[in-house]
Amino acid sequence: MHVLIIGAAGMVGRKFLARLAADGALGERAVDRVTAYDCVTADPLDAPFPVETIAGDFPADGEAERLIAGRPDLIVHLAAIVSGEAEQDFDKGYRINLDGSLKLLAAIRAAGERYRPRLVFASSIAVYGAPFPDTIPDSYFHTPLTSYGTQKAITELLLHDYVRKGFLDGIGLRLPTIVVRPGAPNKAASGFFSNILREPLAGREAVLPVPDTVRHWMASPRAAVGFLVHAATMGLPDDVNGRSYAMPGHAATVGEMIAALERVAGPGPVGRIRREPDPFVAGIVAGWPQAFEAKVAQALGFEAESDMDTIIRIHIEDELGGSFVA
Amino acid sequence: MHVLIIGAAGMVGRKFLARLAADGALGERAVDRVTAYDCVTADPLDAPFPVETIAGDFPADGEAERLIAGRPDLIVHLAAIVSGEAEQDFDKGYRINLDGSLKLLAAIRAAGERYRPRLVFASSIAVYGAPFPDTIPDSYFHTPLTSYGTQKAITELLLHDYVRKGFLDGIGLRLPTIVVRPGAPNKAASGFFSNILREPLAGREAVLPVPDTVRHWMASPRAAVGFLVHAATMGLPDDVNGRSYAMPGHAATVGEMIAALERVAGPGPVGRIRREPDPFVAGIVAGWPQAFEAKVAQALGFEAESDMDTIIRIHIEDELGGSFVA
Repeated sequence: MHVLIIGAAGMVGRKFLARLAADGALGERAVDRVTAYDCVTADPLDAPFPVETIAGDFPADGEAERLIAGRPDLIVHLAAIVSGEAEQDFDKGYRINLDGSLKLLAAIRAAGERYRPRLVFASSIAVYGAPFPDTIPDSYFHTPLTSYGTQKAITELLLHDYVRKGFLDGIGLRLPTIVVRPGAPNKAASGFFSNILREPLAGREAVLPVPDTVRHWMASPRAAVGFLVHAATMGLPDDVNGRSYAMPGHAATVGEMIAALERVAGPGPVGRIRREPDPFVAGIVAGWPQAFEAKVAQALGFEAESDMDTIIRIHIEDELGGSFVA
Repeated sequence: MHVLIIGAAGMVGRKFLARLAADGALGERAVDRVTAYDCVTADPLDAPFPVETIAGDFPADGEAERLIAGRPDLIVHLAAIVSGEAEQDFDKGYRINLDGSLKLLAAIRAAGERYRPRLVFASSIAVYGAPFPDTIPDSYFHTPLTSYGTQKAITELLLHDYVRKGFLDGIGLRLPTIVVRPGAPNKAASGFFSNILREPLAGREAVLPVPDTVRHWMASPRAAVGFLVHAATMGLPDDVNGRSYAMPGHAATVGEMIAALERVAGPGPVGRIRREPDPFVAGIVAGWPQAFEAKVAQALGFEAESDMDTIIRIHIEDELGGSFVA
């Protein structure tokens, strides 16, 4: 099969591509070819199949048609301006996160009735906005509190209408915050959830801008890749409406995260966390969901970690070669 | 104040304009000028203020900027391809119902920080899709089952983001099905709810395509105009998120509607209703909401009829000059 990854140079895109390269297949089907697309050129990669790396401007006229020209069997749509940046740069956020998605869907439909690819869309729990019940049922009304969440919610609605009309075979995954995010911090407002684990484990100081009581919904990068693989290979439910699901995850407070870090890595790393309250960040975080039932997604076979210790150990295994700065 | 009505030649637009002409004011503020815009030229009207009638192609490039050029204080956005037609003509529905709304919002924002009009957006209960609880709480997740409902839901999300960002002062009204709709049937799939009352009262036969047990959420055209006037003049709630509300209405089954018709108009008219089941229409209607709490809208001062007899009497008063064919 031919796989198109849009947003292939991002953290999740790179890890998904590495997983494809390691497995050589998606479920029962061999991967014959991958098109790795992003606004920057994705890093080269050893893979048992050819990888075509393309850089371009996703929402530019004709770009979606160019990506669809090879009629990929699977399209994994990860391209996004992250939450913090989409909030600061309104036009840029709408251009990539809404116009780009609109044009991609239109191009798939315009390719004709005989082309009906599977589209896996990376949505976000940012489609939900406060006030929340303690645990959010799958039927909860979405009132996103950010432009990013709005753009994700709109793309979900479009995806559902395209699925209902039979133009494609799609599914939306409302991803939890991915922790521990490797590499340099990006502009996501949720960055500190990763920073307070990653930086201390690397011997660096991390700033914690919110109280220890802040609770959030998280999953590891490994789980995120697992969601994408499952979404790409599973039999999709017959219910064509509302086919976006809150993914499973683990709800933990910042205090619980720090306690887990101490259990896994001893007293050294937690000493490198510096509490420096930031009312701006705390204000944004106050509008975020804390926990989900995610019953539907679990019934569909999506799986995530059930404790923070495991999430931290996965980071140490996958990113740090098994060791850390004690 | 200067009022722009987009969709001014439609049923609700004409009635809203007639109400402005009768009152000469909106709340405390005199209406100085009305721009009546539609794809066809709205009928001329005696009014105590100048009415500029413009016909145009709403989503065409530059059209929204042209409409906004006079900096209207109030914009009432009623323009839409109705549900049945938007379902049959995918491109036309998205072009008017989504692209048009997107461009209107963008034009308002582009007019600069000093221009912050009130925008009253006519949304629809079509943003809700089955399966439903018996009575839909205000927090219910929206999973529209039609392209029309999708387009309305997306415009709501955009409106909320623009309100949150301070680009305009907006509110979305999820209108019930408007009964009794005067004039010739349009392409709305809900048309029969009006047909079975209007046609018999005019001495004509009406076809009923669904069982008597079908239950739906309705309000009169007079109530719909009242919603718009209230939305145009009320102090908007401080909560800038999710500022679209299910409007109050009256839930009745088709059987209850027919019984009300007999109470109001005697045995003659109900004898002109011919039952001719149509599985296609019945299938569409099965996905529609039946009743709402609408607690938030009522607390905000929106009002509708509480019985079907009144809805029928309003039609006889407002459209038939007080008489009907017995």
